[in-house]
Order: sequence, then C-alpha cells, then structure tokens
Amino acid sequence: MLENDFTLLEKANRYGTPMYVYDGDALKEHYEHITSWLHQTAEVFFSFKSNGNVSIASLLRSFGAGIEVASEGELFMAIKAGYSPQQIIFSGPGKQKEEIDTAVQHEIYCIIAESKEELTYIAESAKRQDKQVSVGIRINPESIESRAKIKMGGVPSPFGIDESKLNDVFDLFQKYDHSLLFKGIHMYLGTQVLDETSLLSSFEYTLNTAVRIKNEYGRTCQMVDLGGGFGIPYFQHETPLHAERLFQHVADLIRSYETELEFPRFIIEMGRFLLAECGVYLTTIQYVKESKGQPFLIADGGMHHHQAMTFRGRLLRNNYPMRLIKHSSNTADVVKQSIVGPLCTPEDLIGRQVELPQGEVGDLLCIEKSGAYGLSYSPTLFLGHSSPLELLLFEGNDYVVRDRGTPEDLLLKQNRSFFRQRRGEDETDRASTRND
Amino acid sequence: MLENDFTLLEKANRYGTPMYVYDGDALKEHYEHITSWLHQTAEVFFSFKSNGNVSIASLLRSFGAGIEVASEGELFMAIKAGYSPQQIIFSGPGKQKEEIDTAVQHEIYCIIAESKEELTYIAESAKRQDKQVSVGIRINPESIESRAKIKMGGVPSPFGIDESKLNDVFDLFQKYDHSLLFKGIHMYLGTQVLDETSLLSSFEYTLNTAVRIKNEYGRTCQMVDLGGGFGIPYFQHETPLHAERLFQHVADLIRSYETELEFPRFIIEMGRFLLAECGVYLTTIQYVKESKGQPFLIADGGMHHHQAMTFRGRLLRNNYPMRLIKHSSNTADVVKQSIVGPLCTPEDLIGRQVELPQGEVGDLLCIEKSGAYGLSYSPTLFLGHSSPLELLLFEGNDYVVRDRGTPEDLLLKQNRSFFRQRRGEDETDRASTRND
Repeated sequence: MLENDFTLLEKANRYGTPMYVYDGDALKEHYEHITSWLHQTAEVFFSFKSNGNVSIASLLRSFGAGIEVASEGELFMAIKAGYSPQQIIFSGPGKQKEEIDTAVQHEIYCIIAESKEELTYIAESAKRQDKQVSVGIRINPESIESRAKIKMGGVPSPFGIDESKLNDVFDLFQKYDHSLLFKGIHMYLGTQVLDETSLLSSFEYTLNTAVRIKNEYGRTCQMVDLGGGFGIPYFQHETPLHAERLFQHVADLIRSYETELEFPRFIIEMGRFLLAECGVYLTTIQYVKESKGQPFLIADGGMHHHQAMTFRGRLLRNNYPMRLIKHSSNTADVVKQSIVGPLCTPEDLIGRQVELPQGEVGDLLCIEKSGAYGLSYSPTLFLGHSSPLELLLFEGNDYVVRDRGTPEDLLLKQNRSFFRQRRGEDETDRASTRND
Repeated sequence: MLENDFTLLEKANRYGTPMYVYDGDALKEHYEHITSWLHQTAEVFFSFKSNGNVSIASLLRSFGAGIEVASEGELFMAIKAGYSPQQIIFSGPGKQKEEIDTAVQHEIYCIIAESKEELTYIAESAKRQDKQVSVGIRINPESIESRAKIKMGGVPSPFGIDESKLNDVFDLFQKYDHSLLFKGIHMYLGTQVLDETSLLSSFEYTLNTAVRIKNEYGRTCQMVDLGGGFGIPYFQHETPLHAERLFQHVADLIRSYETELEFPRFIIEMGRFLLAECGVYLTTIQYVKESKGQPFLIADGGMHHHQAMTFRGRLLRNNYPMRLIKHSSNTADVVKQSIVGPLCTPEDLIGRQVELPQGEVGDLLCIEKSGAYGLSYSPTLFLGHSSPLELLLFEGNDYVVRDRGTPEDLLLKQNRSFFRQRRGEDETDRASTRND
C-alpha cells in the first residue's frame, strides 16, 4: 500500500502530516515469507529497539513473533503488547539492578547476561526472590571474519563475554546452581549486513560454539540465539539480500546442527529487516524558496522525527530513499533540489540536491524505508515541535497507533516547584505564572 | 559548584543518576558578566533550542534575558516561563501556518521572516486577525568571510532571504502596509565560532546592512538582531573566546553605529555560550569489564540522554570533556579506558580510550559542558530507558526541575484503539491486555 501514492495522499489529507505510516499487511506477508523460508527451524524475535510502538509490537506478536527487549521500559511495553514471559528475552550491556530484578520477577524466557558481573548479580537477585532464573550468555567470539558495517563482536567490545572466558562463566553457573539455569548462548556480530556469506558464517560460528560448549563443558543449550544483522539497502551502491535463498540456507544450516545440539530453540532477532520497508514517513512541503540560484523545499517534518534520514552520523552523505508525490496532477520536470526540515539548524537536511519532480507547496514527500529506526531513534524534544502521528494500515482499516503530540506534552515531567517557590519572591513571576 | 566533586557526589547520592545538574548561581554570574561587558548596548536573548527546560528559561528571564523561540511549542513554554510578549522573538525557516497564527495572536515582539512566502503568509494572518504584526527579516548575506564551523549564511541556504532580494521584501512591506510593521533585521552566520574576528566582522556586516537598508530603502530598523554563534571549547585543540574583550568590542562596535541607526534595540542570541559550561551530566559506573585486554566502563546513562557527548555526527572522534569522580577515597592510577552507556548499540560510546583514574563500580562520571544541547538534543525514546532527572542548584537550594521518567511515560500518545478493536478477535490478546 505504501507504493500507492494515491493512498498516501489520501491518508495525509485525512490525518495531516508529519506522519509515519506502517503497512501491517505487507508486514504480515513479509513475516510469513521469512518464517516459511526458515521452515520452522528458527523463531523470529522482534528487536523492540527498532520501533517502540506498542501496537506494532502487538501486531507482530499476533503473527507469532517473540520479542527482544533491552530495558525495563521495553519489557513493560512488551507485556502491554501481550507477549507472554516465554516469548521475551532481555539483552543489553548495562542492565541496571532494578531492571534485572524486574526481569527475574516476571520469569521471562531468558535474560542474556553480557558480563560475569551481571551474571553474579542475576544470581543474587534470583536468590533474593527465591527463583531459579533462565540465563543465556552473550559471547564475544575469539575472532571472526565479518563484513558487518558496524562490528559488535570479534573485537574488544562492551558487548558480551569474551569467548576465552567461558571457563569462568561456567564456574559461576556451577557456583549458583540453585539460582541460575543455563539456557544457552547468544552471539551478534554486527548490524546492517548485506552479505549472505558473512551472515551464514557468523551463524555457523555460533552453532559451532554451542557444539563446543556441549563437548568441552558438558552444557547443552536449550536455546541458541543466532542474533541478526540482516541489512536493508538504503543507497544506490547497496544490493539487497536475496531473502528467500538466505533464509533457506539458514534453515539448512540449522538443520545440519539440530540433532547434535539436541533440538534447542533457535532464535533469530530482527528489527530493521522486518520493519524498515513496511513504513514510510510523510511530510508536506511548506515553502519553496530559492537561495543563490539553488532551489530549497522546506518540509513540515525533519530530524526531530526521523534523524536517520538526515546526514547526522553518516560518513557517506548519500540521500535517503525518498519520492515526491505531487498534490496536483500537473506534470513537473525532474530537477535537483535540496530539502530541509523546519528546525533552526543546518543539521535538519533531509536531502541534498536530490533529483525529484520540481516541488510545490502542498506536495507530499515520502521518505521510504522508515519503518525501523525512525521515530524511536530521533531527538523528539529538539526545538519543541509536536511529535508525529503514527498510522497503521491493516486488513482494510486505519489505526492511529500514536496520536499527534501537542505543545503541552513538552511539560511532561517538568517539575515546576521552582516556579512555585519563587512566586512569593517575584511579583512579575507571580503575574506570569498565574495560569499554571 | 559543578567543580566541586564532593557536592556532585552528594547530589548523585541524594537524587540518583543519570542526572543533569545546572548551576544557577554560575549562570547568574556568567549572565551578569556578559551584560556588564556589553554595557547596555545590546540585550541577550536566550536561544530556547539549546535547553528546553522551562525552569532554566524562567531563571534566565529573572536575570533580564529575552528569549528566541523556534516553534509553537517553544513559544508556549516561553509564556509558561513568564516571558512577556515583548521579550519574545520567533525564528525558523519552516514555520507552519498555525504557528504563525499563534505568534500573531500573542503579539510577540517580532516574528523573524525567513522567506518572501512566509512574509506573505504573516501578512495574511495579521489581516485575518485584524492586527498589525511586527516582523523582522532574516538576511542571507551576499558573501561574507566566516570561520564558523557550521555555516548558516553567505552560501545557498534555507535560512533567511538572499540579500539580493531586499527589493522584493520591501515591496511586500509596502503592499501589506496595514498588516506588517518592519521591525528590523536578523543575521546569523554560523554556530560554534571560536574566532573573535569572525564574530566581529559578521556583526559589522549586519550593522552595515542595517545602514544600507536605511539609506537605500528609507527603512529604519527598530531592532537589529546580530545573531550569535559564540563558541565553547570542547576539545583540546580549541581555544576559548576571550569573553570580556570580545563583548567589550561588541559594545564598541554597536556604539559606533547606534547614532546612525537611530538607537534601535540590539539583540544578541545566546544558547550554548550561556549555558554549556553551567551544566553537567552525571552517570554512575554500573559495570567494569575487560574485553580482549581492553578495559570498559559501562555507565547507567548514555546517548539517549546526551547524544552530543557520543561520537554521532562528529567527524573528529575526540572525547568530550569528562572526569571521573571516585566514590571512595582510594587513589587510583590513571589508565586508558573506554566508557559506554547501557544501550544495545555501538553508537552509545561515551569515550574511547579516555585517560582517567581507573574506574570502579559506583564511581561517578561527570560529563562537563553539558548545559546546552544535552537532553533536548537527544533521542530520549531510544531503547525505552527512563528520561533523566534535571536538578537546578540556585542560591543554596536544590530544585528538581524535571522529575525522573518512568516506563509508563513510553505509552504517552500511544493510542491503543488497535488493541481494543482486536480484543474481540483474539482470545490471547484479550487475556494479555486485560489490565490495560
């Protein structure tokens, strides 16, 4: 549906912009394809960090997905979204003690421990709560060939426990035998990987590690979390993964290990790959201006809603995938135009010299591949604009899954005791805050 | 006070971390120095975008500052903070029509128009509301030598109106004579400027432009907004501005123009320069681990609260200014350590191989120069951690000016009609959302 410009124009007219639109039907189809190619060898766990909308999480749950959370807040929302404890795993290198206590209390499927210190604290928390808690360990491998853009393993890293320290880890499991149940292992080599061979070799490494743990330590994994890292092509030089072939190969790979590993639960994590292409960000051109011979389109949405589409943090200053949807049926020549958001900062650059049909006020700009790492990844408070609406299209219905924000939202948590205390001291202050 | 480690440890113990701490007394002293050096030639306007806390804005108002807002949300908060309309200017390249209507309605001191299209819309809004509205114009200069790190003028830009188009601008003021009152001009050449000569030459350019407008167009500025751009040294290779000399030179420069310009209101905008060094971000070391021979400290705060301290968006991967405050009196050797936040992403890197006393669990990490572009600039929703507390120290009192967030805050604006509608269709869903 997100390919249908007429639909998007109609939604923009009905709900206003800026807005995120998610295609729940496309998501369902995509999810079902992936799981059919995996052929029941592995379960898909949604990485909540990629999109913090609780309705999206709920939709994925209804398709059968599990969920990977990385904070107490995400755990809270996962439960709100209807996930049962057995469908939740909790990872993250800096879990706070209160977060661990909460996860232990909820008896989730598995806490992924990322350090020996954390493992010790989990054991203490379990003991205090008189529970035996299921724990997986995240392993930072000895060395692995990885073509991941952002490496999260195989190098010195805050993530996971060095493979060379497995001895110490299993000593701890031994020591806290009554409190800790060894559930299995988790490895995650990097994100935004577009190379099938890299992905498969990292999964194979993980599977071999599970075998080695069984053989060397006599510990059988009930769960092997292969991580994820499946990339999405955003820019021209990037080639998409061949998903069908890839997941069939993943299934073959898993099958070749499952007997030896005694049929554990295999988990694959997915955020970006699942959602990115099922969502768009829509913003309307508010002003068209020319400066020193160059055309600029000024949109009503920007980096405060969708930081990833701007150039911040990217070394390669490519334009994000986007298209312009004309609000009238007039034809327009394709010209190079720069597009900015409303923020009073040069960082709010949506596209630089993008080739698009000549823009007019009222045209709709559709930022594609925005279903993941969109709103949740953005500095929503910056410059005090209202947060965008989020719309989910599913089975012929429209669901507003996040209401548009208002200026009043900015006062959330702003404790104003300072005002009240000073009111008596300052006449002007009193007059101006009378309506607080 | 922020230099006093004992005070910071005590505040961290009392209020918990992560937390922003602002020193209101240092801010007052800093503000009073600046205004004394300016010698009443110019007024300081606080750039609200640099810190969205309404109590900080209120404090600055009590010192005598005006305020520059860049959205309806900021306008709303400025009024909440007690600013009178005559102390408010509104700038920004993408003002929405509703935002302009609100600014017109509040009769603020000046709307800064950034395009001819906007000027036209302001006139229409004023006409509709039967008001005459004060408008300044932001000018993008013909050419100017600038050593600003981030250029916002003198190049093709979405900001302001090209100087070459002033004819058209004054034609519009003529045309909408009853609705628009020409208040003056605004120029802003760039941000984070650490070179006095660049700053002074850009201010001089602005003043000369005001003279030219008087001579060529017969239009007298009642206001000349010189912009800002005063930089702060964050990294070792940067040298601070000599503030006393600089502002005295600014005062001299203004004095040399004020008679010719018929004594307009001169405005200087300031966000970073005013606040950056009056605030710190405090986070506690939660875990200390070693990976492949390298030590890592894992803190309870990170990029979701303070994106600017991480490396995102910076080409030079220097470490932000920071110090480690030991929680015990043990002495510790200085070693190279990497420090990360709790987020499950390699982007949450606070410092890479920073030379600091060897960290232990419980030590306090103080991120300096964090009073501006801290919380407001950060992706607070990312990974679902709670938002930090903000503490203002002023005249011997502690004021919690933002309460610590809770997981429940994540549901703000999350419309859950999708759940309700599906409840009847899905038994599992019903069971799991019973407590909604």
